[in-house]
Amino acid sequence: MSEYLSDHVHLGDDLTSVVILDQTLLPNRVEYLTLRTPEEMFEAIQLLRVRGAPAIGICAGYCLAALAQQRRDLPPAQFGAELHKLAQYLNSSRPTAVNLSWALNRLGRLAHAMSNAAPADIADALVEEAAAIHREDIAMCRAISEYGLALIKDGDGVLTHCNAGPLATSQYGTALGPLLLGKERGMSFRVFADETRPLLQGARLTSYELQKAGVDVTLICDNMASMVMKNGWINACFVGCDRVAANGDAANKIGTSGVAILAKHYGIPFYVLGPTSTIDLNCPTGGDIKIELRDPEEIKSKFYAQPMALPEVKCYNPAFDVTDHELIAGIITEKGICRPPYTQSLAALFQ
Amino acid sequence: MSEYLSDHVHLGDDLTSVVILDQTLLPNRVEYLTLRTPEEMFEAIQLLRVRGAPAIGICAGYCLAALAQQRRDLPPAQFGAELHKLAQYLNSSRPTAVNLSWALNRLGRLAHAMSNAAPADIADALVEEAAAIHREDIAMCRAISEYGLALIKDGDGVLTHCNAGPLATSQYGTALGPLLLGKERGMSFRVFADETRPLLQGARLTSYELQKAGVDVTLICDNMASMVMKNGWINACFVGCDRVAANGDAANKIGTSGVAILAKHYGIPFYVLGPTSTIDLNCPTGGDIKIELRDPEEIKSKFYAQPMALPEVKCYNPAFDVTDHELIAGIITEKGICRPPYTQSLAALFQ
Repeated sequence: MSEYLSDHVHLGDDLTSVVILDQTLLPNRVEYLTLRTPEEMFEAIQLLRVRGAPAIGICAGYCLAALAQQRRDLPPAQFGAELHKLAQYLNSSRPTAVNLSWALNRLGRLAHAMSNAAPADIADALVEEAAAIHREDIAMCRAISEYGLALIKDGDGVLTHCNAGPLATSQYGTALGPLLLGKERGMSFRVFADETRPLLQGARLTSYELQKAGVDVTLICDNMASMVMKNGWINACFVGCDRVAANGDAANKIGTSGVAILAKHYGIPFYVLGPTSTIDLNCPTGGDIKIELRDPEEIKSKFYAQPMALPEVKCYNPAFDVTDHELIAGIITEKGICRPPYTQSLAALFQ
Repeated sequence: MSEYLSDHVHLGDDLTSVVILDQTLLPNRVEYLTLRTPEEMFEAIQLLRVRGAPAIGICAGYCLAALAQQRRDLPPAQFGAELHKLAQYLNSSRPTAVNLSWALNRLGRLAHAMSNAAPADIADALVEEAAAIHREDIAMCRAISEYGLALIKDGDGVLTHCNAGPLATSQYGTALGPLLLGKERGMSFRVFADETRPLLQGARLTSYELQKAGVDVTLICDNMASMVMKNGWINACFVGCDRVAANGDAANKIGTSGVAILAKHYGIPFYVLGPTSTIDLNCPTGGDIKIELRDPEEIKSKFYAQPMALPEVKCYNPAFDVTDHELIAGIITEKGICRPPYTQSLAALFQ
């Protein structure tokens, strides 16, 4: 695997900064940013320079650890107070990304448990904890990739939607993980990547990651998936997920449910890949998942040299949709593959 | 109906030029071009300044008539020879659009039949014939619109893909015709327009036409159609067609087959609207329809301020797809509504 894809978020050598690949500049420029101040870190997460829920969590952990290192010589009381304030500040950069608060809380709990230790020791422990979050994500992606790889065979065609690759996580990714792992083992796949309007994560990130990794990838517009399937080119669909309900209904990037319906029509298995942390047993069905509506300008003008619709034209711009559990052949987690009925198989993961 | 939408292609007042609305500048600029030379006319058709098969036919008729008017004082032999050469030249501007050659041949046959007449009389007759093509298209669109309107009721939600409105034809259009005709009669519809990647005819033209006509239109990305249908907002899908096989399989803009599959999944009737001239009884099934593959740059860079994928990333860019006849609830022509089994109902149109 290309090194930079597995290392797109990491601590600086002096441990007081965080280095990230600026994903907003892809695919046209590969540029790393060194984040030193809390404001630079906040801005990087808010403006999606780093994105993908697991990657945001990893980045936030390193950010808080780096800020602690900068303050390692402060008196203990002041160190603790500043750390608490900084964690709150970083957490407000994207309030909806669950991994962000999860990572910051994890470091916060550790610092609290060590409150009698010297600030320098706490700062060093936070660096270790942030690295542990990163390592655990790599292991989780690796496990998902192994399970997913068992579902396809050499030479298969796979269709994916949006981006659930290394750039969204640590290494391998979730939906793209089996393809990258298989490639490392000398297997060949023909991958079709939906461009994924309106924010084009499939074009800008997925086709980029696969091309750089030497995987045979073909970019298509979202509305070409039906024809690609009809042509007999697709053996399986792999997508990521943002939240899975207790009955197996899965929220993911807008357009995912359409891909699942097409796959069913053409008799192609449709798989959802994600860590168990995205499974929400407190959420009974997909109908209970709130869908974020976004700015119409993402459809009408973002990325374009000039607007593509009149200013007064209305848009409907949901960021996610829910794929009915009946359309899903399997949900692949780091603990194994869940099959229908999901109410039972998902619950069993947590027993 | 807005005047300019029913008059976006017409002869200049002096009969020696053709005036067109430059569709490549929509929706940002409404600019009319006056075409005088054969080269200007060729370029306008080739670069899609005028597009949509019926509109191209109307434009080509007026172009040949205008060029004949410019040459009305030539000696008869020279007039005939030049007219023939000009028709061949215009016909080569877009070799695949059937209405282009159909209109030019129709004028050519008339000129040939009048070869003993004075060039000035022939030129005047060609102006009349071109106007007749235009009038006939208006009548055909009107008839399709009436039949289509009978399929929906006041307040219905209708989803459409690509552009089959006035700008692609003369007046009303085919797929958009029932909506515009209903609006004139005081009916209200909620129309959802797929933006239609990669060339965005839905965003640039359909939402433009409907907004200008005062129809309630909401623009969506192609991958949002599934969610809009799931929300219960759609009562019928209306799309145009480029070629219909004898068994009812219908070729139309890429993505149409996906819309039809989603509609079937959600129990929504899916209708194809087009003139009988697009029904090709010599073509047994959709498998016999050749699909044009287009430039990858339409997906990767066209319209964008900068490219959205690496230069080396492959693209698959089919311009059309074929919707299986089993997914089509009805095919609406100017002669009436065909229902399954289409092998019988389509053949009956020509008896």
